[in-house]
Amino acid sequence: MFERLKAILASRPFENAITAIIILNAITLGLETWPAAQEQFGTLFHFVDGAILVIFIIEISLRLMIHRARFFSDPWSIFDFVVVAIALLPSGGALSVLRALRVLRVLRLISFVPSLKRVVGALLEALPGLGSISLLLGLLYYVFAVMATKLYGNEFPEWFGSLGESAYTLFQVMTLESWSMGIVRPVMEAHPYAWIFFVPFIFTTSFTVLNLFIGIIVSAMQSEHEAEAVADRVALHEETESVATEVKALRLEIAELKALIRAQGGQT
Amino acid sequence: MFERLKAILASRPFENAITAIIILNAITLGLETWPAAQEQFGTLFHFVDGAILVIFIIEISLRLMIHRARFFSDPWSIFDFVVVAIALLPSGGALSVLRALRVLRVLRLISFVPSLKRVVGALLEALPGLGSISLLLGLLYYVFAVMATKLYGNEFPEWFGSLGESAYTLFQVMTLESWSMGIVRPVMEAHPYAWIFFVPFIFTTSFTVLNLFIGIIVSAMQSEHEAEAVADRVALHEETESVATEVKALRLEIAELKALIRAQGGQT
Amino acid sequence: MFERLKAILASRPFENAITAIIILNAITLGLETWPAAQEQFGTLFHFVDGAILVIFIIEISLRLMIHRARFFSDPWSIFDFVVVAIALLPSGGALSVLRALRVLRVLRLISFVPSLKRVVGALLEALPGLGSISLLLGLLYYVFAVMATKLYGNEFPEWFGSLGESAYTLFQVMTLESWSMGIVRPVMEAHPYAWIFFVPFIFTTSFTVLNLFIGIIVSAMQSEHEAEAVADRVALHEETESVATEVKALRLEIAELKALIRAQGGQT
Amino acid sequence: MFERLKAILASRPFENAITAIIILNAITLGLETWPAAQEQFGTLFHFVDGAILVIFIIEISLRLMIHRARFFSDPWSIFDFVVVAIALLPSGGALSVLRALRVLRVLRLISFVPSLKRVVGALLEALPGLGSISLLLGLLYYVFAVMATKLYGNEFPEWFGSLGESAYTLFQVMTLESWSMGIVRPVMEAHPYAWIFFVPFIFTTSFTVLNLFIGIIVSAMQSEHEAEAVADRVALHEETESVATEVKALRLEIAELKALIRAQGGQT
Repeated sequence: MFERLKAILASRPFENAITAIIILNAITLGLETWPAAQEQFGTLFHFVDGAILVIFIIEISLRLMIHRARFFSDPWSIFDFVVVAIALLPSGGALSVLRALRVLRVLRLISFVPSLKRVVGALLEALPGLGSISLLLGLLYYVFAVMATKLYGNEFPEWFGSLGESAYTLFQVMTLESWSMGIVRPVMEAHPYAWIFFVPFIFTTSFTVLNLFIGIIVSAMQSEHEAEAVADRVALHEETESVATEVKALRLEIAELKALIRAQGGQT
Repeated sequence: MFERLKAILASRPFENAITAIIILNAITLGLETWPAAQEQFGTLFHFVDGAILVIFIIEISLRLMIHRARFFSDPWSIFDFVVVAIALLPSGGALSVLRALRVLRVLRLISFVPSLKRVVGALLEALPGLGSISLLLGLLYYVFAVMATKLYGNEFPEWFGSLGESAYTLFQVMTLESWSMGIVRPVMEAHPYAWIFFVPFIFTTSFTVLNLFIGIIVSAMQSEHEAEAVADRVALHEETESVATEVKALRLEIAELKALIRAQGGQT
Repeated sequence: MFERLKAILASRPFENAITAIIILNAITLGLETWPAAQEQFGTLFHFVDGAILVIFIIEISLRLMIHRARFFSDPWSIFDFVVVAIALLPSGGALSVLRALRVLRVLRLISFVPSLKRVVGALLEALPGLGSISLLLGLLYYVFAVMATKLYGNEFPEWFGSLGESAYTLFQVMTLESWSMGIVRPVMEAHPYAWIFFVPFIFTTSFTVLNLFIGIIVSAMQSEHEAEAVADRVALHEETESVATEVKALRLEIAELKALIRAQGGQT
Repeated sequence: MFERLKAILASRPFENAITAIIILNAITLGLETWPAAQEQFGTLFHFVDGAILVIFIIEISLRLMIHRARFFSDPWSIFDFVVVAIALLPSGGALSVLRALRVLRVLRLISFVPSLKRVVGALLEALPGLGSISLLLGLLYYVFAVMATKLYGNEFPEWFGSLGESAYTLFQVMTLESWSMGIVRPVMEAHPYAWIFFVPFIFTTSFTVLNLFIGIIVSAMQSEHEAEAVADRVALHEETESVATEVKALRLEIAELKALIRAQGGQT
């Protein structure tokens, strides 16, 4: 019975059914944001949402029962588990936030549509290679945020009042949003040389982020390139090698031939 | 007579004439936006526009007559058909919009200038490979838009009042236009932790769009690269193979030689 | 005497002298913008500028005398000529503009510093390949500008009042500067569906400009790549071919050997 | 004793200790920005900071003693020296700035974490190749800044009042921040043709910066590509060459064989 359950859970029709349910849930969650629909069909939406949650809980419980510890070795399973578990948290004060997080369930679609799963996998693959450069960017951010807080925190508490506020403002500056008219020009009215702080910050972080992007581009092209290039090179190597072994065989035969002629020469 | 008509429609002089008429139409449509010119030559512009429309209708009717069903198998023909048909729609209330859409006719130039047609073809070629990643981006947008509507819809109805408004505002945030000073800072005054929603949104979508672009760049470079690289590799393979067959022929000849010598040895 | 003058004009010391004069001119033109310096040394600056202009006119006249018509076949010479000639135009009403244009003379530095000349040459080299895609972008701009003028010109004359104003505003939208908060949101208050016009405009032009950039990147990488790759491939081809000729020579020798043995066989 | 000191300074435990101290310093410097923590533990932070400074001074003095002049040949050592020396400068009026600069000490982490050192090394490696294009960009900036000051300095002293202010405003325009709504539209109210100055400026500098980026991307891909490609090509060359020498050896043997047969032919 266990094996049969496992086969059912992994079967195409079952996966299609779950996919359909996720899409249905996406639609009801979307409709809930429409006041007119919510007013008229609110209870229906509430019921459908509850029913879908029950289905998801049963599905994940079954998968947990079957795979046991192995369930948590697949990152997608953990994702499914977390996203469904959110709905079970006691929702007191932060009610609206938790209700809003229910929509994350729609992202389960990624693990049920193979092409989406592949794309997300490829995106995440690029991340580990970015460790060092992200660490560097983090370090630069920390140093600049501490400096900004010390230099401008008193006069501009809204932007640089604390380390967190400075980090947020510097992130805004890095995205170039209103960096001059909104932030740096007002700061320069109090500190005329503030541009010595901000312009190098923009240069340094843009250059680092640019290199982060280049890293992703280069590794993406590498992996694309590799597969075929390597296959082709291997073919070339093999051909050249087969020529080489042929030529070696030739040498052996000629050596034999020489011996034969010598023998005949002695014979006559 | 049918064949002759077909030859005329495909002839260079005819295409040049249509191209000239499209450019003339572009000029009159441009001049119409200039009040002084419109006042003095308005009726002329109106007449020219009508005349050109008649020419286009005749041209497309002839092409329809000749190619029949095949007419609709060429996307450029469909484009021509739609763009001309717009002018024939009954224009009641939305008059000004339909009159404005007449200028789309100028885009017919693309299908009459070979270099433009090639460029647009190359641009459109990159699209199919972007299916999965666009679907992913759409899914992310939907989830974030539903969440934004639920979280901030009540307090900021102008930006997040409905699913559509949220999607528009999130698109603005993704393009980084006034995302902080215009949207997130005001939102943070009501919800101090709103950055937990928006900063990951910017990271996620930027990263996805970046990968979309990388996909286009990589495939563009691939197709450029391929043609020559493949040609060259094929040449190398062929050369190595010809050496291999030569060496094989050699072995056969030496085997023959051996047999000959053996025969002679026996002979003597 | 003609030949000697030609040699002098092309000599390193002469070029260095002109370079030094250009830099001196750059400095005086910069200092002129500093009111304190202008007040005290204004007449000196004026004199130096006049003297440098005289030197440039003499230099270019000499080059014109020597090279005659060929002078105008070198784009850099034309650039030098135009930039110096600006100062000789009668400056009436638009005086300040022409005085400001004098500083373009400093760009002559590009044609006297070889590394700058090379970089600019490389930049300009990328342009011809962009013809078709720029034409396409121009066509799209024209169509969108005409439509914007017709649709929004009456209500927002400041932004879309004429074809020129629409083109400028659309350029601003394409650079994403205040496109939503500054332009599209106000327009949407009058025309709620204006996003149907602007969002596709942003997509279309961004995508086209992206492809323009990809074109430049790809062609830049191509030319870098080519030189070495081709050299290496040629080497490989040559090696393989030399092996092939060696093997052919071997076959001939073996054929000879066979004939020899046959002859000897007949002999005995 | 000297040798032993040198070994200690280069040893892994010593480096780890310094790394730990730097991280500790980063934390106290961060906490100092938090008013509540500063109030309660301010003297502790002050003491820790002083103690760490003493440790750093001793460490660098020891390294100076050991390496002498060679100390200044390693750019990282110079960086360490400067960053620590900042704290020793007499801090009078500009006290807060110097106190803020202390946090630069945290960047010493880069020279103690190998992966960070490598990443920064790779980033800096890309810089020398950008010399010419940066010079060109600087020249363009200077020319445009002088022109902007002369053309718009009188009417818009806040933005174009001096060469420095113009350069800053043009940098803002280049980053596209509020370039139109914030700067160019107001300027156009006084000078309707100001777009003739600003739009080409945006095109020219964007195109130059784009090429700067392309230069970095291309050189990054080159160096990645090279290593493997070259290794592979060398392998192919070697294989082909080994085949070639084999074939040559064959020819020699056949020539010997021929001589042997001839000799035998003469013998019989």
